[in-house]
Amino acid sequence: MSPAFDPLTFLGDLRRALARDEPDTLAAMLAELHPQQLLDLWPELDPGERATILTRIPSGKAAEVVSNLSDHEQPELLDILPPRHLAEVMEELSPDDLTDALQAFAASDPESVTEIKSLLDSETLAVADTLVGYGEEEAGGLMTPEFLSVRATMTCGEVLEVLRRASPDAETIYYLYVVDGSDRLAGVLSLRDLIVSEPARRVRDVMNADVVRVRTETDQEDVARLMADYDFPVLPVVDTGGRLVGIVTVDDVLDVLEEEATEDIHRLGAAPVDVDYVHANPWLLFRKRVSWLVLLVVSMTLTFNVIAHYEAIIEEIVILAAFIPLLIGTGGNVGAQVATLVVRALATRELELRDYLKVLAKEVGTGLLLGAAFGLFIALYVLIFRAEPRIAAALGITMVLISFTANLVGASLPFLFRRLRIDPALTSSPGITTVMDVVGLLIYFRVVIWIVGPLLEGAGGSPGP
Amino acid sequence: MSPAFDPLTFLGDLRRALARDEPDTLAAMLAELHPQQLLDLWPELDPGERATILTRIPSGKAAEVVSNLSDHEQPELLDILPPRHLAEVMEELSPDDLTDALQAFAASDPESVTEIKSLLDSETLAVADTLVGYGEEEAGGLMTPEFLSVRATMTCGEVLEVLRRASPDAETIYYLYVVDGSDRLAGVLSLRDLIVSEPARRVRDVMNADVVRVRTETDQEDVARLMADYDFPVLPVVDTGGRLVGIVTVDDVLDVLEEEATEDIHRLGAAPVDVDYVHANPWLLFRKRVSWLVLLVVSMTLTFNVIAHYEAIIEEIVILAAFIPLLIGTGGNVGAQVATLVVRALATRELELRDYLKVLAKEVGTGLLLGAAFGLFIALYVLIFRAEPRIAAALGITMVLISFTANLVGASLPFLFRRLRIDPALTSSPGITTVMDVVGLLIYFRVVIWIVGPLLEGAGGSPGP
Repeated sequence: MSPAFDPLTFLGDLRRALARDEPDTLAAMLAELHPQQLLDLWPELDPGERATILTRIPSGKAAEVVSNLSDHEQPELLDILPPRHLAEVMEELSPDDLTDALQAFAASDPESVTEIKSLLDSETLAVADTLVGYGEEEAGGLMTPEFLSVRATMTCGEVLEVLRRASPDAETIYYLYVVDGSDRLAGVLSLRDLIVSEPARRVRDVMNADVVRVRTETDQEDVARLMADYDFPVLPVVDTGGRLVGIVTVDDVLDVLEEEATEDIHRLGAAPVDVDYVHANPWLLFRKRVSWLVLLVVSMTLTFNVIAHYEAIIEEIVILAAFIPLLIGTGGNVGAQVATLVVRALATRELELRDYLKVLAKEVGTGLLLGAAFGLFIALYVLIFRAEPRIAAALGITMVLISFTANLVGASLPFLFRRLRIDPALTSSPGITTVMDVVGLLIYFRVVIWIVGPLLEGAGGSPGP
Repeated sequence: MSPAFDPLTFLGDLRRALARDEPDTLAAMLAELHPQQLLDLWPELDPGERATILTRIPSGKAAEVVSNLSDHEQPELLDILPPRHLAEVMEELSPDDLTDALQAFAASDPESVTEIKSLLDSETLAVADTLVGYGEEEAGGLMTPEFLSVRATMTCGEVLEVLRRASPDAETIYYLYVVDGSDRLAGVLSLRDLIVSEPARRVRDVMNADVVRVRTETDQEDVARLMADYDFPVLPVVDTGGRLVGIVTVDDVLDVLEEEATEDIHRLGAAPVDVDYVHANPWLLFRKRVSWLVLLVVSMTLTFNVIAHYEAIIEEIVILAAFIPLLIGTGGNVGAQVATLVVRALATRELELRDYLKVLAKEVGTGLLLGAAFGLFIALYVLIFRAEPRIAAALGITMVLISFTANLVGASLPFLFRRLRIDPALTSSPGITTVMDVVGLLIYFRVVIWIVGPLLEGAGGSPGP
C-alpha cells in the first residue's frame, strides 16, 4: 500500500476486473486496498459494486469501511448486502461503532434492523447496548467499552503474560488501567513503563495513581481539547460512581476536532451544520440553507424601512444613496473580521468569558484606528471626485462611527452568545453584516441630518458663525 | 492533578506564596501543577513570576511549557531567565521543538541566541541543526529525529531487551521501525506485535513490510489528514533516498489540524492568519487587519460608481434606492453561505477539483430554488406595502437573478482559487459580499431599466402590445 494511490486509475482497473469477472485479479487488487482507499472511492461506486467489494474483502476490513461511512450512507447496506453477511461484518465493529451503525439503521428502516440484531452474537449486542444511553456528543458516546484493566497487586511479569495471552488490539494495549475491587479507577500503567520495569515489581509500585479522567457525560469537545492540550493518547471514562466504563482514544478525537471545526466554520458562514454537502441534492440543500437566509432577508427588510423613512433626504441629495453600499458594506466587513477572530479564540479556549473587558479595551483602540483610516479615505475620495465639503465631512464621520461600532458589535456579540450559552459561531459573518446594515443606515442618516441638514432645509436652525 | 483545576484560585494562592516567600508551599503547589495548567496561567503572570516558576520546576517540565509557548512568547525567556538556566531547560526540548525555539530566539535577538547555543551540548545542537533546513509547514519541520530503529535479523526477545535497556520515551516506543544496512525503511513493528510474539521469532517475520511513509517535504496538512484518515498514531518520514530520518506523532498532528482549521476560519472571515489575537495590542491588530479591509473598501468604491452612473433613475423613483441593501445584502449572504460549504468540503478533501461540474449542477438547482423563494417574497412585500406592480416585478426578478448568481459565484470562486493554487478560504465571506455588492447593483439597474424603464421615459421604445 502506498499513499501515492491514484483512485481513478484503480477504479478503471477494478471495473474491468468486475466486468470480465476475473476473480483472481479482483482478489489481488482488493488485497492491496486499504479501507481508507475504498472509502475514497465509495462515492464513485454504484450499489452493486459496493456490495461485490464488501463481500469479497475480509470482514475486519469491511467493518473498517462501514464504521467510516456517514449516518446517511450506512443504511444503504441494509439493501445491498445479504443480512447474514452484513451481520458478519457488524460483529467486527468496535462497540461504539456498532451502536452508531445500529442507530443509523434503525432511523432508516426499523424492521430490517430487528432482523440484523437477531443475527448478532448476544454478547456483542449486550456490550453495544451499554452504550446506547449516552449522547452522541458526550464522552460516553465516543468511548469504547473494550479496554484492559489489571489489579494493583499483580506483578509486571504477570501482566506481560496476560497481555501475551489476550493479544489485545493495538488501540487498547498501550495504556493499562488499574482498578480496585469495585472496578473503580485507581491508576494507569503504560506499556512502556511495564516493559522497562523489573518483571517482579508490583503494578502498584510502577503505576501512576494520578490519572486524569472524564465522566461519561463530559462534552466530546472538552474531551478532545483535554487530549490535545495534555497530549494524552488515551483517556479513561468513569461513571458517577468512579467506576471505569470505557476509554477514548486519540484517533476518535481527531475526528471530533475536525467535526467541531467544520461546525464552527459552517455556523460562521450561516451554513447548515447537519448537511452532508457532497451527498445532498439541491432540494435538500435548499431546505437546509433557506431557514437562515429567510431570517436574514426578513431582518433586512428593516433596511428598506430605514431608507424609506429618510426618503426625503435622498430626494433632496440623490448622490447620498450612492454611498450606502460602501458604508454599510464596510461595517459588515469590519464586524465579520473581528467576530471571526473572537469566535475562534473562544472556541480554542484562548479567550474566556472573563476576558471580555480586556477584548473590549483592545477593540476600542483598534476600532478607532480602523475608523480613522477609512473615514479619512472616504472623506478625501468624496472631496476629490465630488468636491462637496459638507458631504465629504458627513461621509467621513459616518465611516468613523460605523467602523468603530461594527468593531465593537463584532467583538461583543460572540461573548454575549457564549454568556447566553449559545454557540458564539452563530453570530456568523452574514448575521453581523445584516445587523450592521441596519445600524449603519441609522448612523448615516443621523449624521447626514446633523451635518448636511441645514443645507437641506435652506439655513434653518444651524447655530453657525 | 485534576482537570477540574481552577486557574484563578490557584493563581491567588500562588501569588500569596510568592509574596510571603514560602518556598515549601510554593514547591508543593508547583509539584502538583501540570505544564498545560501553567500554560493556561501564563498570560496572567508577570515576567518576574514566570522566571521564578520556571527556575523552580524540573527542567523537563519547564521544557514542556517552553515548547508550547508561541513564537511571540518564547523570546521573552532570553530576558527573564539566566542564560545557563535557559540552556538547561532547552537541553530537555525535543529536537523539533529546540529548532523552533532557536529560530524564534534568533528572529528576536540574534546575539543572545549565540550565547545560548554556546551553552548547549554539541550533540543536542547537531541533532537540532539537521532539522533547520526543513520548512515549518512540512513533515521535516514537524517530525522528531529521535526514534528507535531495529534490524530485521534481530529476534523479538533481543528487541525487548534493547527496549528495556534504552528505556525510550513513550512517544517513540510504540512503533519500532525496521531499517536495512543503508538505513532505508524496510518495515514497522508495533510494540503490541512484539509483546504478543514468541521471543525467538525474527523481526522480519513479525514486521509489516508495507509501511505508509511521507517525505520530508510533504505538506504538514497532508501528513495530518493521512494520519487522521488512516488512524496512524505515528508516521515515518524518509528523505529522497528512502532513508528513515524521523517520525511524526499524532499529538503533533492534533496541533496541525487545529492550526489549519484556525487559518481557514480566519481566511473565511478576511481576518489575518499570522496574528496571536490574545497577545496583540490594538496597533498591531490594526496593521494586521487593515490590509484586507482596505482592499475591500477600495473595491467597494465601485458600488458608488455604479449607483452614481444610474443616478438619474433614482432621481426619478427615489424608493428604488431603499431596496439596495436588501438586494445586495441577500446576494452576499447567499454567496457567503455556499462558499463556506464548498471551502470546507475542499479543505477536508470531500470535494476535489474534478467535482466542480457536479457541484455546479447541484448549485444551479439550489440557486433557482433560493432565487424563486426570495424573489416571490420580495415581490409580494413590495406589492403589499407599496402596491406598485412594475416595481414589485422588477424587485422580484432582480432578487431571483442576484440569488442565483451569488450562489454560482460562491460555489465557483473556491474552485477557481484552488485551480490557481490559492487557498480557497481566501474567497472569504467579506470578499464574496463585496463582489456581490457590485454585481448585484449592475443586475438591479439593468432589470429596472428593462421593466420600469418605459415608465421612466414615458412610453418610449418599448415594443409592448
